[in-house]
Amino acid sequence: MATDRIILGIDPGTQVMGYGIIADKGKKIELITLDVYKFSSKESHELRLKKIFESVLSLIDRHHPDELAIEAPFYGKNVQSMLKLGRAQGVAMAAGLYRNIPIFEYSPRKIKQSITGNGSSSKEQVAGMLGNLMNLGSEPKLLDATDAVAVAVCHYFQREPTENGKSYSGWKSFLDQNPGRVVKK
Amino acid sequence: MATDRIILGIDPGTQVMGYGIIADKGKKIELITLDVYKFSSKESHELRLKKIFESVLSLIDRHHPDELAIEAPFYGKNVQSMLKLGRAQGVAMAAGLYRNIPIFEYSPRKIKQSITGNGSSSKEQVAGMLGNLMNLGSEPKLLDATDAVAVAVCHYFQREPTENGKSYSGWKSFLDQNPGRVVKK
Repeated sequence: MATDRIILGIDPGTQVMGYGIIADKGKKIELITLDVYKFSSKESHELRLKKIFESVLSLIDRHHPDELAIEAPFYGKNVQSMLKLGRAQGVAMAAGLYRNIPIFEYSPRKIKQSITGNGSSSKEQVAGMLGNLMNLGSEPKLLDATDAVAVAVCHYFQREPTENGKSYSGWKSFLDQNPGRVVKK
Repeated sequence: MATDRIILGIDPGTQVMGYGIIADKGKKIELITLDVYKFSSKESHELRLKKIFESVLSLIDRHHPDELAIEAPFYGKNVQSMLKLGRAQGVAMAAGLYRNIPIFEYSPRKIKQSITGNGSSSKEQVAGMLGNLMNLGSEPKLLDATDAVAVAVCHYFQREPTENGKSYSGWKSFLDQNPGRVVKK
């Protein structure tokens, strides 16, 4: 297990945040876990941002991912919704930045393209292909968390890491530098 | 000093981030410090987000603000710029959320309105009024950090805190709950 690369995929949003964690076992992918957090419309925008931040931090501390892959749409309906989405992405990224996990962003089109070969695939088609790629067992939660698992798998497929200055240092160097900061759960 | 309310004002952006810290001394305001961080266009977007997050965290740990006031424009030129702005706001807010500092947002118009009485004032007019409100000494940095100082002063003026679910708990309760977490600098 020690040499597996762990990838945390995040699909951030202020209504639903999906996550999927996979282990890169060389030529195979193993699903570690996946789920969604759903936020109530009764919760304030700030409370949801706080929950996103704390959830991502908790996932990092529990699963020690080496890399964080994030689904990042670059277009949206209007400036209001993009501001909210940007904030959700920002707090999710802040959790990774705080723990010094390298962050990689992929557009929805790029994610679909890398998994099904078609940038316009439906969620069901992407979920079907994910089921072929790894043993999902009986995972009824897959469809909700499809985008999050998909961005993690998309990152796994990038054989040539597209770092171009986007990464800082990995979890292992963080551990070496901050032995007292590891939260064991 | 112990009973002063300390307000940290932040004007987040991915090119420049201004901050201003004031002490609420009842009927008087005292400026503690103000400045801007400037980010190079050669730095990646993620590196700037990391710097925003770490800068706000460092300001909080150094000055122990009771409240964080943030300038939050709700309109922008296009969805791309709003996504970037949202991310900058998100990481700045995450630092406050992480330290359990209540966050208050104000639109640029509301800020100008509360300081000069006119929501369309120029930066120079706002800076001039700030100079009347507190002793700025010889602060050549004021104009750069005007928006950040202004949002802190705008928050000071809100006699009836507009909390409506946006605040969580203050720095003092955080200290009580997390005595080991205080970073002394």
